[in-house]
Amino acid sequence: MTISVAVSGASGYAGGEVLRILAGHPDVTIGAITAHSNAGSRLGELQPHLHGLADRILEDTTVDNLAGHDVVFLALPHGASAEIAARLPAGTVVIDAGADHRLEDPHAWEKFYGSAHAGTWPYGLPELPGQRDALRGATRIAVPGCYPTSALLALTPGFSNHLLEGDDVVIVSASGTSGAGKAAKVNLIGAEVMGSMSPYGVGGGHRHTPEIEQGLSKALNAPVTVSFTPTLAPMSRGILTTATAKVRSGVTAEELRRAWSEAYDDEPFVHLLPEGQWPSTKSVLGSNHTAMQLAFDEHTGRVIVCCAIDNLTKGTAGGAVQSMNIALGLAEDAGLNLQGVAP
Amino acid sequence: MTISVAVSGASGYAGGEVLRILAGHPDVTIGAITAHSNAGSRLGELQPHLHGLADRILEDTTVDNLAGHDVVFLALPHGASAEIAARLPAGTVVIDAGADHRLEDPHAWEKFYGSAHAGTWPYGLPELPGQRDALRGATRIAVPGCYPTSALLALTPGFSNHLLEGDDVVIVSASGTSGAGKAAKVNLIGAEVMGSMSPYGVGGGHRHTPEIEQGLSKALNAPVTVSFTPTLAPMSRGILTTATAKVRSGVTAEELRRAWSEAYDDEPFVHLLPEGQWPSTKSVLGSNHTAMQLAFDEHTGRVIVCCAIDNLTKGTAGGAVQSMNIALGLAEDAGLNLQGVAP
Amino acid sequence: MTISVAVSGASGYAGGEVLRILAGHPDVTIGAITAHSNAGSRLGELQPHLHGLADRILEDTTVDNLAGHDVVFLALPHGASAEIAARLPAGTVVIDAGADHRLEDPHAWEKFYGSAHAGTWPYGLPELPGQRDALRGATRIAVPGCYPTSALLALTPGFSNHLLEGDDVVIVSASGTSGAGKAAKVNLIGAEVMGSMSPYGVGGGHRHTPEIEQGLSKALNAPVTVSFTPTLAPMSRGILTTATAKVRSGVTAEELRRAWSEAYDDEPFVHLLPEGQWPSTKSVLGSNHTAMQLAFDEHTGRVIVCCAIDNLTKGTAGGAVQSMNIALGLAEDAGLNLQGVAP
Amino acid sequence: MTISVAVSGASGYAGGEVLRILAGHPDVTIGAITAHSNAGSRLGELQPHLHGLADRILEDTTVDNLAGHDVVFLALPHGASAEIAARLPAGTVVIDAGADHRLEDPHAWEKFYGSAHAGTWPYGLPELPGQRDALRGATRIAVPGCYPTSALLALTPGFSNHLLEGDDVVIVSASGTSGAGKAAKVNLIGAEVMGSMSPYGVGGGHRHTPEIEQGLSKALNAPVTVSFTPTLAPMSRGILTTATAKVRSGVTAEELRRAWSEAYDDEPFVHLLPEGQWPSTKSVLGSNHTAMQLAFDEHTGRVIVCCAIDNLTKGTAGGAVQSMNIALGLAEDAGLNLQGVAP
Repeated sequence: MTISVAVSGASGYAGGEVLRILAGHPDVTIGAITAHSNAGSRLGELQPHLHGLADRILEDTTVDNLAGHDVVFLALPHGASAEIAARLPAGTVVIDAGADHRLEDPHAWEKFYGSAHAGTWPYGLPELPGQRDALRGATRIAVPGCYPTSALLALTPGFSNHLLEGDDVVIVSASGTSGAGKAAKVNLIGAEVMGSMSPYGVGGGHRHTPEIEQGLSKALNAPVTVSFTPTLAPMSRGILTTATAKVRSGVTAEELRRAWSEAYDDEPFVHLLPEGQWPSTKSVLGSNHTAMQLAFDEHTGRVIVCCAIDNLTKGTAGGAVQSMNIALGLAEDAGLNLQGVAP
Repeated sequence: MTISVAVSGASGYAGGEVLRILAGHPDVTIGAITAHSNAGSRLGELQPHLHGLADRILEDTTVDNLAGHDVVFLALPHGASAEIAARLPAGTVVIDAGADHRLEDPHAWEKFYGSAHAGTWPYGLPELPGQRDALRGATRIAVPGCYPTSALLALTPGFSNHLLEGDDVVIVSASGTSGAGKAAKVNLIGAEVMGSMSPYGVGGGHRHTPEIEQGLSKALNAPVTVSFTPTLAPMSRGILTTATAKVRSGVTAEELRRAWSEAYDDEPFVHLLPEGQWPSTKSVLGSNHTAMQLAFDEHTGRVIVCCAIDNLTKGTAGGAVQSMNIALGLAEDAGLNLQGVAP
Repeated sequence: MTISVAVSGASGYAGGEVLRILAGHPDVTIGAITAHSNAGSRLGELQPHLHGLADRILEDTTVDNLAGHDVVFLALPHGASAEIAARLPAGTVVIDAGADHRLEDPHAWEKFYGSAHAGTWPYGLPELPGQRDALRGATRIAVPGCYPTSALLALTPGFSNHLLEGDDVVIVSASGTSGAGKAAKVNLIGAEVMGSMSPYGVGGGHRHTPEIEQGLSKALNAPVTVSFTPTLAPMSRGILTTATAKVRSGVTAEELRRAWSEAYDDEPFVHLLPEGQWPSTKSVLGSNHTAMQLAFDEHTGRVIVCCAIDNLTKGTAGGAVQSMNIALGLAEDAGLNLQGVAP
Repeated sequence: MTISVAVSGASGYAGGEVLRILAGHPDVTIGAITAHSNAGSRLGELQPHLHGLADRILEDTTVDNLAGHDVVFLALPHGASAEIAARLPAGTVVIDAGADHRLEDPHAWEKFYGSAHAGTWPYGLPELPGQRDALRGATRIAVPGCYPTSALLALTPGFSNHLLEGDDVVIVSASGTSGAGKAAKVNLIGAEVMGSMSPYGVGGGHRHTPEIEQGLSKALNAPVTVSFTPTLAPMSRGILTTATAKVRSGVTAEELRRAWSEAYDDEPFVHLLPEGQWPSTKSVLGSNHTAMQLAFDEHTGRVIVCCAIDNLTKGTAGGAVQSMNIALGLAEDAGLNLQGVAP
């Protein structure tokens, strides 16, 4: 007996990536595929790379069209997902790729999103301490943001093991432009972005900043403040995050490496590379894998962790499917046995 | 009972792509992974995107290391594969991703490759008329070149149905730079190729020209001459082929469309797009799919067919695995149920 | 005494490129800079690369704001330029980067542009036979389209010397996405175009087709029919045109080379490369130079000419300034002494 | 009377960029053009974008071929330039684009370069406090490294005005791959770097780290320690540097902005953008301009400065020509009146 899944927001990048993965998932059937303004179109027109689903017709994104499936993926603008989720049956597994249910602090939510807080759901990053258990049997899951996924995987072992100081974390991330969504904006057209790097949301303004601080503060069990600067890189996909924090005095390079190694050696999708090898976004493109490496700069007393993910896969749709697999008790890597696509 | 496969040339792009696909193939186990100068290395150092095989150690590419497996993939420089293939057991399924066994005309071989002709093997392009049957049970298979794969899929329905004239075919293809191989050459470094288009092998000099003429001449059952110009595009993967030929007088647009439609409507990996939709290389990236569209320009009396493939997947490793599946009587799409990776 | 110039359409790519060149022109002062919806903005907001003009404020594109300058550049949507041009003083040198005044055949104009024909102006491609003289003292100049610039430079020597047959020309061009303009369209955003090649306007539908046929027919002094296929390449700028035609019987490779050599050896901006060297778009990026090479494929009886330009410079703004220089009797390369920007 | 200039290392990226700029310099004639292994070649073969110099023949890089010119540019591997410079006449203006004469501390030199210290020359970054005067009449000039150029321009106003703390500077830079030089290395080929971001020299190992600390320590007149992480971005040119430091307590956002504004408002090539506008590398491509913006993140107490340059122009060859102009008393912007090339 297979699991029936509905995917909303199917004309966008997140929804398209959920469909790309589910098309190869052995345990699910793709029930409803829904969109808003594109309802009624052939999927092949909007997502021509999904050859196996090209003839499927998009339905309207309504509660009626989504309810009645075992699992519902919401890939909608923030605000929209909370509204629909509230009206789906309690027993349906609802996985929200949007931001609505990530932040626990209502004030942080209101400050960065300017609307009423919709409450918090189990956080779909199973590699965090204790999080895999929290996802088993869950019927509501909040998929982390793409930047927080890379930042939390990069630094959590250092904080959960009390090896790093929480008052001076600096994170700079470079993201492919798909992170900005499938939006017709002049600043995103190819002629503008090809061959160019540019920052945005500098100075603490990016909405993923409180989400990163929330995750690292839980790991340290004390407040962590983060200076986060996102930049746009001339590539379609991928995030390279460079995360650095002060190492507590007396902590050695060996202790640091051991902490990361213990955190990830048994993880199927997070890889601390052999010493001397550094990650590239291409090595994880189209896959749910995370590649990272760390260095202890004794001259500055900082650890520098570089972490590469695909923003649409591990950073969104892959993490969502991995969380679904755990929630339903399926093999965690079902549908996710995809290598990176390189060169 | 699973099939044991050996893959040679594993440090290059073709060998790496064969491994990427086989890592997800339900019916095979990857026995030997071999290389030449990189023998002894961890695969993860050379192909960091193959996370599932990262700890495998490359063996030396010798007959001893390859023999004893049910299937052997040869991804070697031309010349090298013929020499090794000749010493592998007759019952072993040998699939040559190199050029050695593609051309039937010894003079064409010698003119373009400058060495002795190694003989011809069944041609691994099952979508050509009668070719799927020719591959069933085959123990020696020659994988087509990447450009010929796109060119033959683009034009064969027109020639096999005698709708086109054979004396004036013009083909211009744009390829990602992975087509030039994993070679340390100044003209291939990123700073040179990013943001640039350039031609090469112009004037009939490219080695794929006789292979394209061979295939189209078989389809027409009469000689076809082809003007073929390859160009390098600033992308890692993908081929967009623009192929054009004179339409025989009296042939209508409807007859043309019907011929392509009949040729491909039942094919799992070749897609004639709905009228008005044109292919992009991104829509097939990392997949074994081919997307194409045609137009009849009555003003010039020419049909123009645009065909997009991934040079490393359908153009090399995907076509190789598809041919293996047919030869062994497996599901033709086993291990190839991959959508394109976009955006 | 310097020449006062007004530039309209300054917020777009063509207008921005005219300003980039004029900012370094020794003989002109930039009088008015105008736009439509962006009137009132700082140029630095819209064209941040024009540091030398960053504080200039855009005026509204009106006849009043453009009249009263010695030279007016029109970089406007087709239709708009004809309307404004008609109301500018007869003595003002008006240079139209749009399509309105390129085509001589009113029927071709109406078929491809669907509006009334505005008449024909001297054609701003001085390297064509006799065209430099036609531009001296001209007060109305039609800047050629970017594709026609590359196609006409590629093939004219063969036709004007009666070395090629006019009934079977095939041209395939790859263009950077700036050729599609600074338009907020989903199909042009970076995530869609990076890493992808795609065709458009296939089958004779592109508006530059009649312009190419017009130019080649004049060179041959007989009708020439052209199969033209444009493609979009993952780069911001540049056009690589691959143009091929049947060589008249008895014509030798030497005669072909001599014709191109005689046509361009004394040209400051068109370069037939030494034999064996092929052009790349990067070698002309940001410059007014054209790089080309040809090969005679005796097997097919075709000459193949590959020609690289920057679509925005030689293909639009550079050609426009070069034409202005000739019209006003300035040094032809004034303001155009720019090398390509590579790597 | 014009100045005779010799350029060594003309087949590389730095030497090629010096020639690109000098080809448009009103006051110089390019005397000798020299290379090592490529001596005897046509420049057009090696630098096809330098159309105006295509027929120049490269001489061998010897003291004899370089001496006797008013100015000599050295674009050579470190070690080589010191050796040649020592044998050039004292009166010749020698401008070293290499690293040999940048570092003042012999121990830092030996630690990072592993050879004997060659001594220190005036530092070719005229925008640093007092540095323009130091360059007037200089006959030996050390061109800064590309990363230090962007890092020092980004942070110096904060340190020279004692607004920032020196013990906790974090800098992450993204560079185009031309920064790695014109070297045939597999990890630099297009198929590897396109669509990928990757770090290198992480943990304080990059040779530009001591150069950045030297410059910032001079500005503060006290030791500054820097955590510097360089990354490779999928573009040919450009550096985007994100530099952040702790703001001294009590310092306001207005004081910060005023310091940067006073430092750069009168500079011809360094631009603090209007508030709200952030830099992109494309806006400075091919130009000597620097674009920057800063933000004070009160939540973390850090200032974040984002600074964009072209690594080959302001970061190397443009800065070298600007320094030459100052040394010789020419107009500082002679030959450098180039806007960015965008889109």
